[in-house]
Amino acid sequence: MSRGFFMTIEGGEGAGKTTILQGIADWLEARGWDVVVTREPGGIPIAEKIREVILDRVHTDMDARTEALLYAAARRQHLVQKVEPALAAGAAVLCDRFVDSSLAYQGHARGLGIEEVWAINRFATVERLPDLTLYLDVRPEIGLARVRSDHGREINRLDLEDLTFHRKVREGYLLLTRRFSDRIVTINAEQPPEQVLAQALQETEKRFKGFSHFRVK
Amino acid sequence: MSRGFFMTIEGGEGAGKTTILQGIADWLEARGWDVVVTREPGGIPIAEKIREVILDRVHTDMDARTEALLYAAARRQHLVQKVEPALAAGAAVLCDRFVDSSLAYQGHARGLGIEEVWAINRFATVERLPDLTLYLDVRPEIGLARVRSDHGREINRLDLEDLTFHRKVREGYLLLTRRFSDRIVTINAEQPPEQVLAQALQETEKRFKGFSHFRVK
Repeated sequence: MSRGFFMTIEGGEGAGKTTILQGIADWLEARGWDVVVTREPGGIPIAEKIREVILDRVHTDMDARTEALLYAAARRQHLVQKVEPALAAGAAVLCDRFVDSSLAYQGHARGLGIEEVWAINRFATVERLPDLTLYLDVRPEIGLARVRSDHGREINRLDLEDLTFHRKVREGYLLLTRRFSDRIVTINAEQPPEQVLAQALQETEKRFKGFSHFRVK
Repeated sequence: MSRGFFMTIEGGEGAGKTTILQGIADWLEARGWDVVVTREPGGIPIAEKIREVILDRVHTDMDARTEALLYAAARRQHLVQKVEPALAAGAAVLCDRFVDSSLAYQGHARGLGIEEVWAINRFATVERLPDLTLYLDVRPEIGLARVRSDHGREINRLDLEDLTFHRKVREGYLLLTRRFSDRIVTINAEQPPEQVLAQALQETEKRFKGFSHFRVK
C-alpha cells in the first residue's frame, strides 16, 4: 500500500513560506518523490467559488463566523478532491497554509476562540492532519518590513496599526506549537533564508524517515 | 427592554409547514405582534451567494461535509443580519427550517452524525436557539403522496427509492424531539390542516405566555 506524506507550512506575513516550500519540493523531487505543491482553494472549482464569496469586496458585512465556516468548507473540498487522492497515489503533498492558519488568524487573532474554530475544522478534516507542519516564526515587525520593502516602500502608520493584529497572529501560532507539539516544528525564520531552508530540510528528513518508501539517492 | 420571540417550524416533505407558518403569523399579527416570516437564505446577499454555490448543479462532486459547512455559513449570516435585528426590535420571527433540518437531513439521514453536525451549527448559532420549534410529524409515504398529488401525479418508482431516505429523515427528527424536548413540540401533521393549526396555535400561545409583552386582544 503506497501512502504519501502530508506536510503544511505556516507563518505570518513575510515569513518566507513560498521560498521554503519550493526548496523542500525540489529536495523531495531530487529524491524521487512525486511532489504536489498546493494551497487552498487549489484550483478546485467548488473551493474557488467559495473563495470568491469570501473575497468579494461587496461583502463588507460578512460575519467572522460565516467567514470561518466558509474557509472550513473550502478546506474540506480541497482536501477531498486534491490532497487525499495525491496522498493515496503516494505523493508528498506540500500545502501552503492549512488548519493552523484558521486557528491562529480567526481563532486567536480575530478572537473567535481556538477551540471553537478547531471544532469546525475537525469536522472539515476528520482524521486528516498533516504528518508535519513547519511554522516559520518571525516577529511581525521584521516580517512586515520584508513584505513592504519587497513592494519598494517603507512601513507606514497603517502598517503599524496592523502590527497589533499580526502580534496576535504570532501569539496564536505560538500557542498552537505548544498544543500540537507532536506535529508542529518551529523554525526561526529571522535567520538567512539558506539557514531556514537547511533546517526545514533537516526536519523534513527526520520526519520522513518513518515513512517506509523514503528514498535517499 | 423589548425582546422578540424566535420560532422555527420543521418537518419532512409534505408536512404542510408553509400553511401552518402562515396561519401562526396571521394569528400573531392579529394579536399585535410585528411578525417576520423568513427562511434561509432569506434575501441576505451573502447567504444567497452561498446558497448558489450549494445549489449549482455543476457541483455534483460536492462533499457532504462541505455542503453541511456551507449551510451553517448561510445560516450564520441570515441569523446575524435578519433574525437577530428583528428579535432586537421585539418582533416574532417565524423561520421555515433551521438547525434541526441540518441535524435531521445531513446529520442523521446522510449519515454525518447528529453530534458532528450539531458542533458546526453550535458554532454558527452560538447561544441563539429557537424559543419554540414545532415539528410537524408525518409518515413519509403520506407526505410524499401529498406533494406528488399537488403536482398532479402518482408516486413512482423513484419516489419509492426516496422513501428510504425520507424515513431516515423522520427518524432523525424523532431523535431530535427527544434530545431537545424542552424546545421542540411534535404535532401530528396527518390530522386535517385545521386541527394541525389549532394545535400549533395552542402550543404557540402556551410558550408565548412566558414573554412579558404577550398581548391577547
